[in-house]
Amino acid sequence: MIYVTYDEAVAAMARGLARCMDEERAKRFAEVFAGNSMDGVYSHGMNRYPRYIRTIESGMCDASVLEIEKVSGVGALEVWDAKNGIGPLMADQAAERAIELAKAHGIGCAALRNNSHWLRAGRFALKMAQAGLCGICFTNTCQNLAPWGSMTKAIGNNPIAMAIPAAKGPLLMDMAVSQYAYGKMEVMAKQGKVLDVPCGYDKNGKETCDPREIVDGGVMTPMAMWKGNALSIMLDLMAAMFSGGKTCLDLGADAAKEQGMSQIFIAVHPAAVHDMEEIEARMQKTLDFLHGLEVMDGMPGVRAPGENLEKTRARHAQEGIPVARDTWEQICRAADA
Amino acid sequence: MIYVTYDEAVAAMARGLARCMDEERAKRFAEVFAGNSMDGVYSHGMNRYPRYIRTIESGMCDASVLEIEKVSGVGALEVWDAKNGIGPLMADQAAERAIELAKAHGIGCAALRNNSHWLRAGRFALKMAQAGLCGICFTNTCQNLAPWGSMTKAIGNNPIAMAIPAAKGPLLMDMAVSQYAYGKMEVMAKQGKVLDVPCGYDKNGKETCDPREIVDGGVMTPMAMWKGNALSIMLDLMAAMFSGGKTCLDLGADAAKEQGMSQIFIAVHPAAVHDMEEIEARMQKTLDFLHGLEVMDGMPGVRAPGENLEKTRARHAQEGIPVARDTWEQICRAADA
Repeated sequence: MIYVTYDEAVAAMARGLARCMDEERAKRFAEVFAGNSMDGVYSHGMNRYPRYIRTIESGMCDASVLEIEKVSGVGALEVWDAKNGIGPLMADQAAERAIELAKAHGIGCAALRNNSHWLRAGRFALKMAQAGLCGICFTNTCQNLAPWGSMTKAIGNNPIAMAIPAAKGPLLMDMAVSQYAYGKMEVMAKQGKVLDVPCGYDKNGKETCDPREIVDGGVMTPMAMWKGNALSIMLDLMAAMFSGGKTCLDLGADAAKEQGMSQIFIAVHPAAVHDMEEIEARMQKTLDFLHGLEVMDGMPGVRAPGENLEKTRARHAQEGIPVARDTWEQICRAADA
Repeated sequence: MIYVTYDEAVAAMARGLARCMDEERAKRFAEVFAGNSMDGVYSHGMNRYPRYIRTIESGMCDASVLEIEKVSGVGALEVWDAKNGIGPLMADQAAERAIELAKAHGIGCAALRNNSHWLRAGRFALKMAQAGLCGICFTNTCQNLAPWGSMTKAIGNNPIAMAIPAAKGPLLMDMAVSQYAYGKMEVMAKQGKVLDVPCGYDKNGKETCDPREIVDGGVMTPMAMWKGNALSIMLDLMAAMFSGGKTCLDLGADAAKEQGMSQIFIAVHPAAVHDMEEIEARMQKTLDFLHGLEVMDGMPGVRAPGENLEKTRARHAQEGIPVARDTWEQICRAADA
């Protein structure tokens, strides 16, 4: 692991990306990778850069697409097509459209079809909270989880993000339906760690807490057994239905070919219908109460999701952003190519 | 356990309720209890009737409230006050309003404050799906769960329901943030069963899979550790913020005094922006695919949530609805009083 500054990271990635797109978009895309890592979401930050470059070079992701295209709409619900453009930049546009719709109608939904990987669900909900709105964003993925009871990779590790604006910085939940990200489980397998709860089946279909048995011919299952299973299926089918886009089944089971996801952006504008001062005070009361709770030995204090975001950013601003040495080398090679 | 017909159940409960409200509403309220049990949601059906009668008799729930009252609104987002009326009947009105808003604007949200217990989240999402819309409904609850790492009942077992209209009957997910309902855990404790995963802390703050240790001086925790924890907090704060109503903290930790919840009803109308035929066919393809998956020994086939609803109803229509003998006796005593 090495440490780089945000500006170094953006500059290096933007140089590599500029081979595939204009400089302005290359910089914005580089900021997404660096920003996600800066926020502590290493699993969907700079580590994804080499893979995304390959996705563009293979033609799966079309870097020439400048704007999402409107398919249909009525009032506060609009359907847009990302035409397999650069995932996070297309998703940014859809999130901004949802914000505009919510500002006009109190609530708004932009449903986006045929997008490339948006990297991190939380980015778009956070964008809404930064604009003073609440956000609910979700996407489907390729088939990468086994449903409860089966050994077949058949459902998606679909993430859902929710964000709420708050006086001391937005609250942000960003969770996929598996207990751990697959990458995290691979790391735990290498470290010989044991999972807190069964998170998959081994190659013989036995539930297991040993990540090595899941990584080695087994399969991940959703969190909370039947509950994560149900959530995965509903998010997938709602995403496909709202957007008129692909389902998880359409996306297939080959992660290397994951392309054309259905992504949903819902923004709600409470300030349009409320005096926010009292509501924010009531929310702060809850946060203060949670912070004051006694916790068990060895556990961190209770926090609402996202409350550590500013602290994480400050630490990375001071110490640099951690990135795997080989990832950084790939980023530098792409920059110098 | 005894078995009663739907009509018997409605008639008996309506007689008891008619002491507190007019006959027409008494019948509708009785249909909610019976309907939830008919759908297999025994934990939020007829078993709740005796407790709800007490809530009305104590004055906590005001049976004289006929209609929810509009507080404010802009476009597709409206805020309503239930004035502590009869929970499910007030919530029905809010769900219907969300449907109207979605029909007019593509998406609509009715945020309801100060409502009594709505019994079952799924009822309202299902109502939307039966009208051809997708539904997302959630509520907060009193403080009945310990957050991840603390022994204090501080957060709510807040349910979220999602429903999708489908050719062969709606899909419906209805899940609270704990792995098991508390009532279910009590039953498992009596039966000496062991939980699949740790679902709480014992009285010494040790995680445990033994439901007896949770029921006996311990405390339930959210499903999937930090994930259910995060979901609980976000649903609570969004419900309070959208409605301008109470937070989980405001509702307090005394379940007997749980009153005045914040409840959210979001409806989305995909048919307003899509030709649904192709979309429904694509959804059916997913359902057929899931049904065809090979499952492990002893596991039921893979189903999308809600797919067993019709089967459950048909079984209850034939065999009667199961209800605990003492619950039925209380229902009959109330009817004859």
